[in-house]
Amino acid sequence: MNKEISQAVIRRMPRYYRYLGELLESGVERISSGDLSRLMKVTASQIRQDLNNFGGFGQQGYGYNVPYLYDEIGKILGLNQTHNIIIIGVGNLGLAIANYMKFEKLGFKLVALFDINPNIIGQEVRGIKIRSMEELEDFCRNNAVDIAALTMPKATADNIAHHLVEMGVHAIWNFAHVDLDLPDESVVVENVHLSDSLMQLSYNITKNFK
Amino acid sequence: MNKEISQAVIRRMPRYYRYLGELLESGVERISSGDLSRLMKVTASQIRQDLNNFGGFGQQGYGYNVPYLYDEIGKILGLNQTHNIIIIGVGNLGLAIANYMKFEKLGFKLVALFDINPNIIGQEVRGIKIRSMEELEDFCRNNAVDIAALTMPKATADNIAHHLVEMGVHAIWNFAHVDLDLPDESVVVENVHLSDSLMQLSYNITKNFK
Repeated sequence: MNKEISQAVIRRMPRYYRYLGELLESGVERISSGDLSRLMKVTASQIRQDLNNFGGFGQQGYGYNVPYLYDEIGKILGLNQTHNIIIIGVGNLGLAIANYMKFEKLGFKLVALFDINPNIIGQEVRGIKIRSMEELEDFCRNNAVDIAALTMPKATADNIAHHLVEMGVHAIWNFAHVDLDLPDESVVVENVHLSDSLMQLSYNITKNFK
Repeated sequence: MNKEISQAVIRRMPRYYRYLGELLESGVERISSGDLSRLMKVTASQIRQDLNNFGGFGQQGYGYNVPYLYDEIGKILGLNQTHNIIIIGVGNLGLAIANYMKFEKLGFKLVALFDINPNIIGQEVRGIKIRSMEELEDFCRNNAVDIAALTMPKATADNIAHHLVEMGVHAIWNFAHVDLDLPDESVVVENVHLSDSLMQLSYNITKNFK
């Protein structure tokens, strides 16, 4: 897989992974491309095209082998490796993420939490201690940190993101309502802008119903 | 604005709104298309194209009038109207959303919270009482509910979504990790699938660094 795969295809992969995981939980070992297409509400040709980007996994007259396809898509998504994750900002959103067990099944391991609030520093969330921001640098230098989730207010997010990149953190899961302006283009940023999502909802309501 | 505007354009609108809001807060009244383009890191021609979908707002040799454009995009996004929102599932994620003050500035008004946990029913979040699920139907029938945010586990999300649609709720902000399968196609659904976002991050890490 040397060619560049479009982000549109990549964005659809987790959905395949999710549906295949559910099939697997229900004990389904094999599914025809027609059934998968009806289940996921995308055309069989779209599925074929998407999976062909990674070499294709279907067999004419057999369909898809569910456990095999699930594993392969997991590998494509890098879920066969452990990713250590830290959370910066332990408000409700940080807590929600820290407590979302599903992530662990996907190979994401929470290794530290950081906050500036002295009232919660030292407390534990699922056995992981909340540390002060002063400890961030040492922690990042002495531990493998793959992903930093930024769940603090936007005013400080850009600064902290820069600092993290200097300390060798290469991936940021950004919930702060700001576009991070990072010097190193190889840093991977995934934004979850909740307000943007709500505004899109509002647009569609206005268009359909008002 | 009779023609259908693509969701790709719509997805970019909140970002314009956010940048224009920040310019406005900094007291900027007018911006050239070149400056706006550099600030937002999109081409001036992309900006022109996007805004032309709604009639275009720039003037040759003047650039964009910031307060005017901000207001107009706000109207396009339906932010000049109040949207009443209820939250179903008052765990950490539900709390995070309930406490996110930014939403109110955008015209979204939290009117009720619902949960099944008897230990928290009756408690208040920012003056809004947490109600039991038994009260949901009455509440929806007697109050204008524009949006329901689903922040409960995925096992019950689809059922509750169906029920909400029967009660006349037309827009769902879905955080449950499942695609809702709703009978009424006019219902507006906006998904925030956190795991999908994390998997996409994982893919990009794997591709870039491993």
